[in-house]
Amino acid sequence: MKIGIIGAGSIGLLFAANLSKAFSVTLYTKTSEQAEMINKNGIYLQDGATHSRVSIHALPVSKWTGLEELTIIAVKQYQLHSIIHQITSLECIPHNLLFLQNGMSHLKLLKNIPATNIFVGSIEHGASKINTYSVSHNGKGAINVAPFKGGIEIIKEFGELCAAIDFPITLKDDFYNMLINKLIANAVINPLTAILQIKNGELITNTFYFAAVKKLFLEISFILNLEDPIKRFRDVLRICKKTGHNRSSMLKDLEEGRRTEIDAILGFLIEEAQVQRKTATNIESYYYLIKGKEKDRRGVN
Amino acid sequence: MKIGIIGAGSIGLLFAANLSKAFSVTLYTKTSEQAEMINKNGIYLQDGATHSRVSIHALPVSKWTGLEELTIIAVKQYQLHSIIHQITSLECIPHNLLFLQNGMSHLKLLKNIPATNIFVGSIEHGASKINTYSVSHNGKGAINVAPFKGGIEIIKEFGELCAAIDFPITLKDDFYNMLINKLIANAVINPLTAILQIKNGELITNTFYFAAVKKLFLEISFILNLEDPIKRFRDVLRICKKTGHNRSSMLKDLEEGRRTEIDAILGFLIEEAQVQRKTATNIESYYYLIKGKEKDRRGVN
Repeated sequence: MKIGIIGAGSIGLLFAANLSKAFSVTLYTKTSEQAEMINKNGIYLQDGATHSRVSIHALPVSKWTGLEELTIIAVKQYQLHSIIHQITSLECIPHNLLFLQNGMSHLKLLKNIPATNIFVGSIEHGASKINTYSVSHNGKGAINVAPFKGGIEIIKEFGELCAAIDFPITLKDDFYNMLINKLIANAVINPLTAILQIKNGELITNTFYFAAVKKLFLEISFILNLEDPIKRFRDVLRICKKTGHNRSSMLKDLEEGRRTEIDAILGFLIEEAQVQRKTATNIESYYYLIKGKEKDRRGVN
Repeated sequence: MKIGIIGAGSIGLLFAANLSKAFSVTLYTKTSEQAEMINKNGIYLQDGATHSRVSIHALPVSKWTGLEELTIIAVKQYQLHSIIHQITSLECIPHNLLFLQNGMSHLKLLKNIPATNIFVGSIEHGASKINTYSVSHNGKGAINVAPFKGGIEIIKEFGELCAAIDFPITLKDDFYNMLINKLIANAVINPLTAILQIKNGELITNTFYFAAVKKLFLEISFILNLEDPIKRFRDVLRICKKTGHNRSSMLKDLEEGRRTEIDAILGFLIEEAQVQRKTATNIESYYYLIKGKEKDRRGVN
């Protein structure tokens, strides 16, 4: 099976290095310089104490033709517009696309994409990019995939081959439920840890931070009309505890002067609140604080 | 005129050093060690490029008998309980007390104090304590004083003598209006700058932080039933600009591991909201974030 992977960030590199054990993988990068670096060096994968170097065929994304049986789109939500523009400009209609963005705001962009089957995924692996061709796999987790449009045959076959190389995929039937679970955890943990510059676990161990967590969760629950808020809140706390010693991706993004995923996370909730004519007081304020910190560090408007 | 000053923090030291030019001043400190240090070294006052050393008579506060014609209470709001307990235990009823706390939550404590005349003040000087007996006067500002209970004769006389030594006092007739002005500015500027770890001016120059400022101000305005919100908001912006390069007292308190005045500021507004059965969503969340940061840094419950 030929697999295309668009995006050579931490998740793109992690997928490319693992999937190349069972598939013919082409990794599509933003620039030709990146592709050259990867073709020359391969991908250097650090996995706990194990190090490995994997040869990979890389091309700049402008060369992507959509002819692979499955293309995995592993760019950030805010980089999706140009990819979607490219998809709609392809000569062919791609067969199978799997989108791996955080948050929920990419879903409305996927509705009008011409493709036979569209899937969305939610990644619970921890990974960080070290340089253009090196990635560190910090924590094993699930890869959940659900159909967004079309049939599921290809993703079943893909999942079986992934299981054989110890890179398991879990097939889910309800994409909304799958993505909303991760969104809730991201919406509580990421902004607060990034504003306070603390590790995830401190949100629970510090009783005052915990009070702020509860207030924010209640607002999210109200906007999403959660039917089982107590169970969902326990899920968030479980993730906080499990990742207690980690710095959230949003905190790391700010520390390293990168753009955050706040628009895909709190931005999505603000839009949801507007549609339902609900107030999102805390969510809006935290959104502004993160956008302000982004601006502070990146020096842009 | 004999003047007592209780509290040898930045404001207590600044007042003692200045007032000793016209009055017989006794400075009351928390511990006898502090009093000894001040008796030995005097107060070292740094005022721009000018340095001066002023001899001062200091005693531990346990020795205060309330017999001075005017006693100025310059401790933090959260240190007021023990002072009030001491006042109610005095053999005499003190004549004139002037309270210089930030915020508004001390007012309810002053209602039952046995004293002939009670005044409250609001300080716009910038001052920071360097060590036990040294203070830096960073910015000249107003000292506003208003009667809280009783007559104003003594404070008029005091004010005339202060004017003569270039340490002017402005007499106000409405203590509530006087204190609320400072409370509003403190409630907007202090928590946000302390959470974001930024200078006051960035609240205006960063458009996203400014959006958060507006949201917070609107909540404060709603709770305080402000009649002239636009004018009050302009006052806050004016203070932000004027003190643009300064770090707020709350930010400095957190940086130096000290307790902040958050209870006297946002804590007061939360109580007001509860009395009026109003929601104070942002105010409560910012209160928790500051209390959490206090706990983080001080390692206390």
